[in-house]
Amino acid sequence: MLDRSNELNAWDRNHFFHPSTHMGMHARGETPTRVISSGEGVYITDTNGRTSLDAFAGLYCVNVGYGRQKIADAIANQAKNLAYYHAYVGHGTQASITLSKMIIDRAPEGMSRVYFGLSGSDANETNIKLIWYYNNILGRPEKKKIISRWRGYHGSGVMTGSLTGLELFHKAFDLPRAQVLHTEAPYYFRRPDRSMDEEQFSQYCADKLEKMILAEGPDTVAAFIGEPILGTGGIVPPPKGYWEKIQAVLYKYDVMLVADEVVTGFGRLGTMFGSDHYGMKPGLITIAKGLTSAYAPLSGTIVSDKVWQVLIQGSDQMGAIGHGWTYAAHPICAAAGIANLELVDELDLVKNAGKTGAYFRSELAKAVGYHKHVGEVRGDGLMAAIEFVEDKDDRKFFDVSRKIGPQIAAALLERGVIGRAMPQGDILGFAPPLCLTKDEADIIVTNAVHAIRSVLG
Amino acid sequence: MLDRSNELNAWDRNHFFHPSTHMGMHARGETPTRVISSGEGVYITDTNGRTSLDAFAGLYCVNVGYGRQKIADAIANQAKNLAYYHAYVGHGTQASITLSKMIIDRAPEGMSRVYFGLSGSDANETNIKLIWYYNNILGRPEKKKIISRWRGYHGSGVMTGSLTGLELFHKAFDLPRAQVLHTEAPYYFRRPDRSMDEEQFSQYCADKLEKMILAEGPDTVAAFIGEPILGTGGIVPPPKGYWEKIQAVLYKYDVMLVADEVVTGFGRLGTMFGSDHYGMKPGLITIAKGLTSAYAPLSGTIVSDKVWQVLIQGSDQMGAIGHGWTYAAHPICAAAGIANLELVDELDLVKNAGKTGAYFRSELAKAVGYHKHVGEVRGDGLMAAIEFVEDKDDRKFFDVSRKIGPQIAAALLERGVIGRAMPQGDILGFAPPLCLTKDEADIIVTNAVHAIRSVLG
Ligand SMILES: Cc1ncc(COP(=O)(O)O)c(C=O)c1O
Ligand SMILES: Cc1ncc(COP(=O)(O)O)c(C=O)c1O
Repeated sequence: MLDRSNELNAWDRNHFFHPSTHMGMHARGETPTRVISSGEGVYITDTNGRTSLDAFAGLYCVNVGYGRQKIADAIANQAKNLAYYHAYVGHGTQASITLSKMIIDRAPEGMSRVYFGLSGSDANETNIKLIWYYNNILGRPEKKKIISRWRGYHGSGVMTGSLTGLELFHKAFDLPRAQVLHTEAPYYFRRPDRSMDEEQFSQYCADKLEKMILAEGPDTVAAFIGEPILGTGGIVPPPKGYWEKIQAVLYKYDVMLVADEVVTGFGRLGTMFGSDHYGMKPGLITIAKGLTSAYAPLSGTIVSDKVWQVLIQGSDQMGAIGHGWTYAAHPICAAAGIANLELVDELDLVKNAGKTGAYFRSELAKAVGYHKHVGEVRGDGLMAAIEFVEDKDDRKFFDVSRKIGPQIAAALLERGVIGRAMPQGDILGFAPPLCLTKDEADIIVTNAVHAIRSVLG
Repeated sequence: MLDRSNELNAWDRNHFFHPSTHMGMHARGETPTRVISSGEGVYITDTNGRTSLDAFAGLYCVNVGYGRQKIADAIANQAKNLAYYHAYVGHGTQASITLSKMIIDRAPEGMSRVYFGLSGSDANETNIKLIWYYNNILGRPEKKKIISRWRGYHGSGVMTGSLTGLELFHKAFDLPRAQVLHTEAPYYFRRPDRSMDEEQFSQYCADKLEKMILAEGPDTVAAFIGEPILGTGGIVPPPKGYWEKIQAVLYKYDVMLVADEVVTGFGRLGTMFGSDHYGMKPGLITIAKGLTSAYAPLSGTIVSDKVWQVLIQGSDQMGAIGHGWTYAAHPICAAAGIANLELVDELDLVKNAGKTGAYFRSELAKAVGYHKHVGEVRGDGLMAAIEFVEDKDDRKFFDVSRKIGPQIAAALLERGVIGRAMPQGDILGFAPPLCLTKDEADIIVTNAVHAIRSVLG
């Protein structure tokens, strides 16, 4: 019998260039590979028969959980009936048109159109292009800069990686590029002045933003992009009053708000959108992960009616828009999106995210909050993080080279639970499927306690 | 009974922001929509029961033709077994690992690794990032400019749209951006000096490239990107000697060649890759369309061993690479890719592209070449174009506002055949599925003759 696993291993080491991986160590076999073969609910299983509770839902994307027959069937049917046709020049399919309607039905007030893409990154790329186009049409050719936040995550392309405010995504790539600026991360735990309360810190962030806009010149600043709650930057909910104060500044200088809801869209915070949750009024919304629960690659830009009216004016002046991906609105991906959104409703997952999320976070805080190296347990909905510190009272962080976060994530994996060592800081992140039960939440908490103790005593 | 078609029409007009579409006319119902519902072989059918022979294979991507049960089954099985897991930090699936091996088996000599993406655009985005990273690791921080050609098409993002050398994709988007330069299009029919023969014109292109490199400074020029045969820019095969002369210049100044094989990869020219066909030796190859025949969104960057060795050095210095898309190496898309490449072999489609392509192009030339408004019939493999001119002897082009190309494409569609009015110039393009038969080729030719006569007499 052919030893498939050895063969796969060789192919993997010799030919597969993995994302976000150490190329040298992987190629030389110095780091583990893991070949995943099946999934069910919150569990995945690899080709060695090892099962793990995936408390990060892939990359916080498998919102409905693994192994949902309904979505698999929808994909299979669409693949059989019509795998592909393009959406250029007014073409569509029942699936793509229906999904655009379903998205607008669920979107915050004032939203009108959906432009489909494949990844969260390319949806933000679309946003940048639309923001520039919008201001050109409005006769404001200088109004082009986009302000993002340090620790924001908005993608991994040249421009979207520039929006991202994390060093790992900049270094050796010559990022960030022109027209992108970064302002203060809304990270209360890491506030510069510990005497500030949350409202004061929010005011501080809004003041810094206003100063930046004034220094650059309001006529040059087009947009502000932010995740409702910081994700990859550390899973950090906004401090009290943050979005209200930020939006007051944006409104004052006519700067468009872009809500990057790739993680928060379709339920993760216990509301359909994070914008609803925090009272944000965006001109554009980025969506991806929760749209299909990752069963197929699909993203989108939801365009507000206000922006849409200007885009129409643009095409009336200049003709068809020169923007398209061959696979935009791919019928199989749209069919997956429809089945997924139906399932989210049928299983009442938005409500469960809120309810089980609150339970999970409170149990986690109770179980590990006391630990002398746990600086903070935080989150919202079904997103949670534990931040580790060397000294709690001094808020002294561990030396990066000790890799405390990765060590704890590895210890947790050893115990059968997948959490994520967030890329900047010693932060263990959780974002389980929205179908998480209380029992499963308990399993995560119990194992987190043991994993932390095994590394930090 | 619910009138689904009216309902769909309203949703489409009110909520679906189509790519490359006139937003205003579409929203107001001034342009047709077409809702495609099924496909079989080279034919597609819409919800009104109208069938068309798709002589452009979607957007030259449905290489194996529509309705292939084998690929639909592979997608269905993968969706059932494991719809998604990520590929970050050394993770994989049987499908993604196997496909990386199959791609390298088919790739030109000296290629070693595959980085998976979703779209041709994002694969070129990966290329840009890798080119910059590569030169940073080699200690050449100034060597960053990328030269593309006028009329090249490389995507629709901010940077990839900059690589694209077509006005429609630049205007009102502030493109092209810094670090991207454009040189002469290898477009013999539109050569500035008609007395040049093909070899002379190729030398002229190579000389212009060399002048640009010298003017910019060779230490600042990192890469040259080109499609083996110009696609969206007009379906223009390279003039005799072109790639040889261009590569001599690139070699002289240590400028990396990137072959954008999104259209030509996996058989369209009658060879597995266009690089083999024209003797190109690229450092990176972009792939997409033919990889899955569009049954699922999947693209890739094939990395040569030479470049890979430097990337390894990079991760040994700097750790894991900060580059990834959530849906990179998506298992369903990889499963579609495997089944598709197997089908290409089983049906001997690469050979058919060469053979039926030659037949199709020669019949087309015979049938329409005589026409006084046909300036040129050209192509290679299963890509062909007819370029219309007002006056053949003076090589005088039609006024753009007359929309001769779009009119002829519309007349052809009226007759049940889909060709594509290429976006710049009056050029009718063909790139049918690679399973095209001689009989189907005859149908396209016959209808093209009638369509041309109906518009141009
Ligand atoms: C908030 C946010 N935006 C954008 C992205 C980019 O999405 P993708 O990885 O699909 O390109 C991510 C991915 O994690 C994200 O979390
Ligand atoms: C040569 C070439 N490169 C890149 C692309 C971009 O691919 P996508 O539309 O999938 O982003 C295309 C699309 O037509 C192409 O023809």
